[in-house]
Amino acid sequence: MDKITSAKNPRVQRLRDLKSARVRREEKRILVEGEVMIREALSCGLRLEDAAADEGCAAFARELEARGLPVMQVNRSLLESICETRTPQGVCAAFEAPRPLAVAELPERIVALDGVQDPGNVGTIWRTADAAGFQALLLGAGSADALSPKVLRAAMGSGFRLGFALADPLSEALDALRGRGYRILVSDLAGADFYARGEIGERFVLVIGNEARGVSDAVREAADCRVKLPMRGGAESLNAAVAAGIMMYELMRGR
Amino acid sequence: MDKITSAKNPRVQRLRDLKSARVRREEKRILVEGEVMIREALSCGLRLEDAAADEGCAAFARELEARGLPVMQVNRSLLESICETRTPQGVCAAFEAPRPLAVAELPERIVALDGVQDPGNVGTIWRTADAAGFQALLLGAGSADALSPKVLRAAMGSGFRLGFALADPLSEALDALRGRGYRILVSDLAGADFYARGEIGERFVLVIGNEARGVSDAVREAADCRVKLPMRGGAESLNAAVAAGIMMYELMRGR
Repeated sequence: MDKITSAKNPRVQRLRDLKSARVRREEKRILVEGEVMIREALSCGLRLEDAAADEGCAAFARELEARGLPVMQVNRSLLESICETRTPQGVCAAFEAPRPLAVAELPERIVALDGVQDPGNVGTIWRTADAAGFQALLLGAGSADALSPKVLRAAMGSGFRLGFALADPLSEALDALRGRGYRILVSDLAGADFYARGEIGERFVLVIGNEARGVSDAVREAADCRVKLPMRGGAESLNAAVAAGIMMYELMRGR
Repeated sequence: MDKITSAKNPRVQRLRDLKSARVRREEKRILVEGEVMIREALSCGLRLEDAAADEGCAAFARELEARGLPVMQVNRSLLESICETRTPQGVCAAFEAPRPLAVAELPERIVALDGVQDPGNVGTIWRTADAAGFQALLLGAGSADALSPKVLRAAMGSGFRLGFALADPLSEALDALRGRGYRILVSDLAGADFYARGEIGERFVLVIGNEARGVSDAVREAADCRVKLPMRGGAESLNAAVAAGIMMYELMRGR
């Protein structure tokens, strides 16, 4: 196993470059931090390109090496220079990014995000969609970068399992899906009672809007139905990931 | 309005002291950041003890002064030294802390936290409980500090509205509540299907466990019923605040 000590080493630099969203997008690579997440990515069939581990993760590094995977030993400060987390878990790896689906390839039950900006919310919605039995995530322009370490960390492996598609503008993708028989259900603070929504069929998209502004006008116009969860106490709204979770689980009841 | 420039000014120091959980607890005071949250706290009847505003919040500072409330003008670096957020919103205030309820005072519908550690999760559950129509938050030992700025920020005003109680150990409080006719519903990855839980009556406690370890053995034993949300995809669990939200909204259906 190569032991790297120079911050200017090209392999180290190539990992560090993945902090940039532009580099991730152009090179279709992602950075995965921590042993648990790296195992998840490997078990989902993603291709590991290179990895860096410090002393504390030497056993896992040897395991990667024994599997014929590239890995280098680095010191703590080099590892910290690569990772996004402030106290990284001792190992990180570059993987080939999961390939986004085309809108035409999307399956029946979709959650779409219209400018959800917080990476924790995007990742949490991805994870919840997987658990609820939704089949894909559709990310509209202005949403957090699906391939960022923060999103993938919050998605807890679901980012490697549950397919995703990108749409810009989202409203056009929704129109195309409606044309193929999908019902478009939009979460909107000015919507009607979610629990009184009636039948929605087998193919549907649940759209969640930006944390502060909600959904855009174009997306609102693309809706078959605008819905809102009841607010009983003094709260005016819910966290976007919580609202998405409540609606997704409810939409899957009895299916 | 006093203009303060010294970091050693005793009023500034008294606000800065509220970064310490021990000080908040002993002095029963909290720090509230940002105009929106300060307005919420005032509208909930909390007593403002002192406030600090920078140039950008001069209009709001004058408004506070016109209402007869204490406020000082500080520069940006002084404000940053007081606030917990890295880029504070320009104004913060010390309030008398909301008084915790005694367990004996708790209302009918309660969400209890058994060691939920992430302040964002605690605050988000507080906010969701308020919106769902739950009536109180019961914080077991080991949960994040209810009066920390991070919790109160995530609670978005619900921390000032929806009552809370503290319990150490939580299992004893649950036993006491069961003795008063409450059903104790515990979220547990080894539990039965949440949607097949049967009738739970008017008085109940929903217990949410630690993000990694779940609920403690003592709390598990205090349960009338252990429940788990179905996991359909590859995800093994949900975010604690999302799971709490799904269950709270479902428990309130038709009430």
